[in-house]
Amino acid sequence: MRLGMIGLGRMGANLVRRLHDGGHDCVVYDADAGAVTALTADIDVTGVSSVAELVQRLPVPRVVWVMVPAGAVTTGVIEELADALSAGDIVIDGGNSYYRDDIAHAKLLADNGIQLLDCGTSGGVWGRERGYCLMVGGDRAAFDRAEPIFATLAPGVAAAPRTPGRDGEVTQAENGYLHCGPSGAGHFVKMVHNGIEYGMMASIAEGLNILHHADIGNREQQSDAETAPLSHPEFYRYDIDIEQVAEVWRRGSVIGSWLLDLTAGALAKSPDLEEFAGRVSDSGEGRWTVIAAIDEGVPAPVLTTALYARFASRHLFEFGAKVLSAMRKQFGGHDERSG
Amino acid sequence: MRLGMIGLGRMGANLVRRLHDGGHDCVVYDADAGAVTALTADIDVTGVSSVAELVQRLPVPRVVWVMVPAGAVTTGVIEELADALSAGDIVIDGGNSYYRDDIAHAKLLADNGIQLLDCGTSGGVWGRERGYCLMVGGDRAAFDRAEPIFATLAPGVAAAPRTPGRDGEVTQAENGYLHCGPSGAGHFVKMVHNGIEYGMMASIAEGLNILHHADIGNREQQSDAETAPLSHPEFYRYDIDIEQVAEVWRRGSVIGSWLLDLTAGALAKSPDLEEFAGRVSDSGEGRWTVIAAIDEGVPAPVLTTALYARFASRHLFEFGAKVLSAMRKQFGGHDERSG
Amino acid sequence: MRLGMIGLGRMGANLVRRLHDGGHDCVVYDADAGAVTALTADIDVTGVSSVAELVQRLPVPRVVWVMVPAGAVTTGVIEELADALSAGDIVIDGGNSYYRDDIAHAKLLADNGIQLLDCGTSGGVWGRERGYCLMVGGDRAAFDRAEPIFATLAPGVAAAPRTPGRDGEVTQAENGYLHCGPSGAGHFVKMVHNGIEYGMMASIAEGLNILHHADIGNREQQSDAETAPLSHPEFYRYDIDIEQVAEVWRRGSVIGSWLLDLTAGALAKSPDLEEFAGRVSDSGEGRWTVIAAIDEGVPAPVLTTALYARFASRHLFEFGAKVLSAMRKQFGGHDERSG
Amino acid sequence: MRLGMIGLGRMGANLVRRLHDGGHDCVVYDADAGAVTALTADIDVTGVSSVAELVQRLPVPRVVWVMVPAGAVTTGVIEELADALSAGDIVIDGGNSYYRDDIAHAKLLADNGIQLLDCGTSGGVWGRERGYCLMVGGDRAAFDRAEPIFATLAPGVAAAPRTPGRDGEVTQAENGYLHCGPSGAGHFVKMVHNGIEYGMMASIAEGLNILHHADIGNREQQSDAETAPLSHPEFYRYDIDIEQVAEVWRRGSVIGSWLLDLTAGALAKSPDLEEFAGRVSDSGEGRWTVIAAIDEGVPAPVLTTALYARFASRHLFEFGAKVLSAMRKQFGGHDERSG
Repeated sequence: MRLGMIGLGRMGANLVRRLHDGGHDCVVYDADAGAVTALTADIDVTGVSSVAELVQRLPVPRVVWVMVPAGAVTTGVIEELADALSAGDIVIDGGNSYYRDDIAHAKLLADNGIQLLDCGTSGGVWGRERGYCLMVGGDRAAFDRAEPIFATLAPGVAAAPRTPGRDGEVTQAENGYLHCGPSGAGHFVKMVHNGIEYGMMASIAEGLNILHHADIGNREQQSDAETAPLSHPEFYRYDIDIEQVAEVWRRGSVIGSWLLDLTAGALAKSPDLEEFAGRVSDSGEGRWTVIAAIDEGVPAPVLTTALYARFASRHLFEFGAKVLSAMRKQFGGHDERSG
Repeated sequence: MRLGMIGLGRMGANLVRRLHDGGHDCVVYDADAGAVTALTADIDVTGVSSVAELVQRLPVPRVVWVMVPAGAVTTGVIEELADALSAGDIVIDGGNSYYRDDIAHAKLLADNGIQLLDCGTSGGVWGRERGYCLMVGGDRAAFDRAEPIFATLAPGVAAAPRTPGRDGEVTQAENGYLHCGPSGAGHFVKMVHNGIEYGMMASIAEGLNILHHADIGNREQQSDAETAPLSHPEFYRYDIDIEQVAEVWRRGSVIGSWLLDLTAGALAKSPDLEEFAGRVSDSGEGRWTVIAAIDEGVPAPVLTTALYARFASRHLFEFGAKVLSAMRKQFGGHDERSG
Repeated sequence: MRLGMIGLGRMGANLVRRLHDGGHDCVVYDADAGAVTALTADIDVTGVSSVAELVQRLPVPRVVWVMVPAGAVTTGVIEELADALSAGDIVIDGGNSYYRDDIAHAKLLADNGIQLLDCGTSGGVWGRERGYCLMVGGDRAAFDRAEPIFATLAPGVAAAPRTPGRDGEVTQAENGYLHCGPSGAGHFVKMVHNGIEYGMMASIAEGLNILHHADIGNREQQSDAETAPLSHPEFYRYDIDIEQVAEVWRRGSVIGSWLLDLTAGALAKSPDLEEFAGRVSDSGEGRWTVIAAIDEGVPAPVLTTALYARFASRHLFEFGAKVLSAMRKQFGGHDERSG
Repeated sequence: MRLGMIGLGRMGANLVRRLHDGGHDCVVYDADAGAVTALTADIDVTGVSSVAELVQRLPVPRVVWVMVPAGAVTTGVIEELADALSAGDIVIDGGNSYYRDDIAHAKLLADNGIQLLDCGTSGGVWGRERGYCLMVGGDRAAFDRAEPIFATLAPGVAAAPRTPGRDGEVTQAENGYLHCGPSGAGHFVKMVHNGIEYGMMASIAEGLNILHHADIGNREQQSDAETAPLSHPEFYRYDIDIEQVAEVWRRGSVIGSWLLDLTAGALAKSPDLEEFAGRVSDSGEGRWTVIAAIDEGVPAPVLTTALYARFASRHLFEFGAKVLSAMRKQFGGHDERSG
């Protein structure tokens, strides 16, 4: 089908390519005209130079996919579309919007008879080839109308063996896209997905860090009243080849996973990862997942701890650590160690 | 090759079946004679009624795989083999032994010229079909001699796409088995593997628990000085179909993993998991991973928190929680709520 | 000075008593007329039967202290006062309001020229005797006018030795009350105070729980493939008298604290705390503290974990724990243990 | 009574001074002769130049207090004393020994009829003046004989108000010393005490760190696909005077504690703590507390998290953080941010 795409960054451009490969006809726009030119030079899609023009080029009822940074930018585009589109049109927000913003955006568009589908889109830079996992919220009828788009973007059932016990008709979930509920439900599920991602990533990272330090018994130890001595250095004399370990875990182990595949890929390129500083960013979903756990009053200690490890990697506990040092100095006269 | 297997529990029997399918010739023993009879009735392997007989039936130099419960049982079998075997023979401990026990066992056997290979074996009940991920420690030459066994048990390179950048000869790690280092290294790596497993499992469980409670805004709220009110119930009115969510995440998402596949399988059978009480056991590896982190002095907050969630699921913080209630009663006169 | 008090629950009534003891003249109101009668029967204060009457009985410019449940009830009273009071009057919200609500309430009142002081009030049921620690936000001039009230309610400098290095004039903070900043600052500081309280309480509770289980080596152990065996029972044969331990820590130790004093008091009454079920409520401040940490992007793993321990004590991870059990059943065929 | 003191570091010398003030007669030794000279020049105690000489100068049955670094140094002194002392003598290990070492040391000494008392000693550099909190394990009769020493070192009941409900004869615990059980029990209780200390310290530090960042809404925010935007900067515009906050919390608040007193003292000297780098050491007790929790199978998430925050403050998660960055680069093409 013919649809519009607003936002041709890494994710947006790849979505267009996969849609194009799947036989859809895309009208594309980006605030950066260069991004439009680059894409139209590469594949057969229609480039436009304004949202208004994009709207004009689409058949009624229109479908417009928005793929721009979450927050103020997305809200701006939604507001523009609320004016430019007509009753019966559909907007799909495929970015990383906070599900609460979806609820507000959906109301805004609904005032003009326009439907919003919020679509959590997982798959990263690999999605063009592997397909995207799509978690969608909003009106069910609008979802049904846009389904051909989701079906093309998703990986399809062949991407993984069917779950034992599922042998009837292939469901949408098995194809890799799911209508999760009313407005916000798609991004809510995607938010929790990212929360889980943080936890799984931290699990792998902590484990590899333990293996990385498994030779600590071979290094000379400081030991004084201020430092816990390593009582059994003989148990920590392993020089583990972490690159190989990541590889061996990829087949047959309980922790086999796509994140482990990627880790193995990164270590294959750079066993010591020396090109990284270890300052780990976080986008909003990890934070929002924790806030959801707090609001619901359910414990999420692993996911939260994973988030905090990222904060700490950016040295955001520095003042608190100084407080600890100051207390130790006060009660024990302990000076900080230089090393 | 011909080898002996001691221990025909779920894991041991499946190892024998896979070895038999792979053309190896197995002599099998279990303290429970019924387990021997059951297996020999099913496939063409040689059953024996004692360790001594097993040793007798093996060609020199012998290879004996031990697959019995970690701890005292394994130590007993190792001690028996130290007497029964001869210099040049190889013992493989494929169970869940603590790597520190491996070091002691290896010394004990080495006194009689026998080599111990410690082999962490991941794959659970699915291993017979999928193959096992094998992490091996001990003497390199002994490992090389036993390699045909590992090669048969492991999944082989075809079980997963090769990591981008690896295109030369297929390595052992790519086939699913790895010599990790000297005695204990195999179980050390397996220990950390299980630590990661705990973290990944808890990540998925916490995320699904948050989704499970996403309808809390639809339930009536208590609100008084003792209870935090839910300030925005309108953000928690989702009735998420968790079974479908687990399914959709299996294709194209960042958190795709074997554990997620299993979760989807469990939910497909029983969406509410009502047959489970939620009392989660832990075998030793999670605990030992944490102790390794502590000894090394490196943080493992996610893996540790995952372990503690299991302890708490078995109500082992009850006294501590009473202390909290008692403090609240003391300073605020707060009575516990019944619900 | 003469002031009004709205809300005569446990906290409000005690505030009035302490103010009365300190020579202030209180006009008191509660939606429950019985609470007014009870208090006026006991001490010489003026009871009224409506907010309007309370306002009438106060000299201009008026000062009204509001001590009612946070959330909707407080907002209702603030709205009523916005109408009933006049420009130049002061409202003090001494309850546990979310600091964000203070900002909204302050705006509402400011529209009529009325000042809001948000006052975090710590001290619990002991405050009447010990004095209250008061953290105040809002207009500085309004704070100065209300200071005699704060000075009476606070413990005064004699309640603790002066901090070494402070020997000039006694500051407000040293007397136990502090102007923390603009609207919301008082409850923000009180919120973090309560977050710290959760962490300190959990620290004591976890430690005592470890002591409580220090005799685990004396109990018979299950040991099988599913359960981590206790490898050194000889190290866990202590039958610790926790009541005595709490007492000994009260003098000379690094962890001496009021919470420990209270713990010792609770254990003195009931060494096994058998009257408690261990279901630990949380009011809003712990949650809001975590949300503040998340918003600021700084790690607060200890405070958050303490909060989650409360959630878990109320069995709110049950579904997640079932997911864990279901995964273990799937990959390892592990049945849950009954015990 | 007359007793020997081995080890005249900061703690040992202060113990001698307090014992001397309390009328005891001390024979003192340190491997560093200068420490002996310094102390004998200052107060009237008997300096000796060897353990043998110290033993000679004590009346039979002898009491020797050992106050040297835990681990190998303590073990060396214990071994020396096992030879030099006679049946009926008492050794008190007042250092920070692992309670498991006490059990071994007690056996070693018992072979020669000598009793070991393990004495956890809390109070730091303030103990000389405030008195020490003493947690003692070992033979009860030996404890009774040494009690005059403990009674002098402890703060005495007047150091804190008696716990409500305790009004009979003052117990040992109320005086600040306690016989906790057989060998190791004293250091076990001290170990858990320090575990709690870590948790309380981290609670205060995290809380103050949140206050320190409460002005984040005043700073310019980066916002792009990689960074979670601060959605409500208006809620984070507080410039909190942390020094004053620590002071106000000292009187009347629920979190009043000696650690808070010290924090207020440190902030009074240096509000920004700029002389500290925030690299926080840990001696053994925090680690051992966690290992005890793991062995007992009880959750201690708060205490453990506090320990890990110290590890992380020393940059020991660096490799793990690089793994996280590497994964993000792999799946999302995310470059690390410089700032």
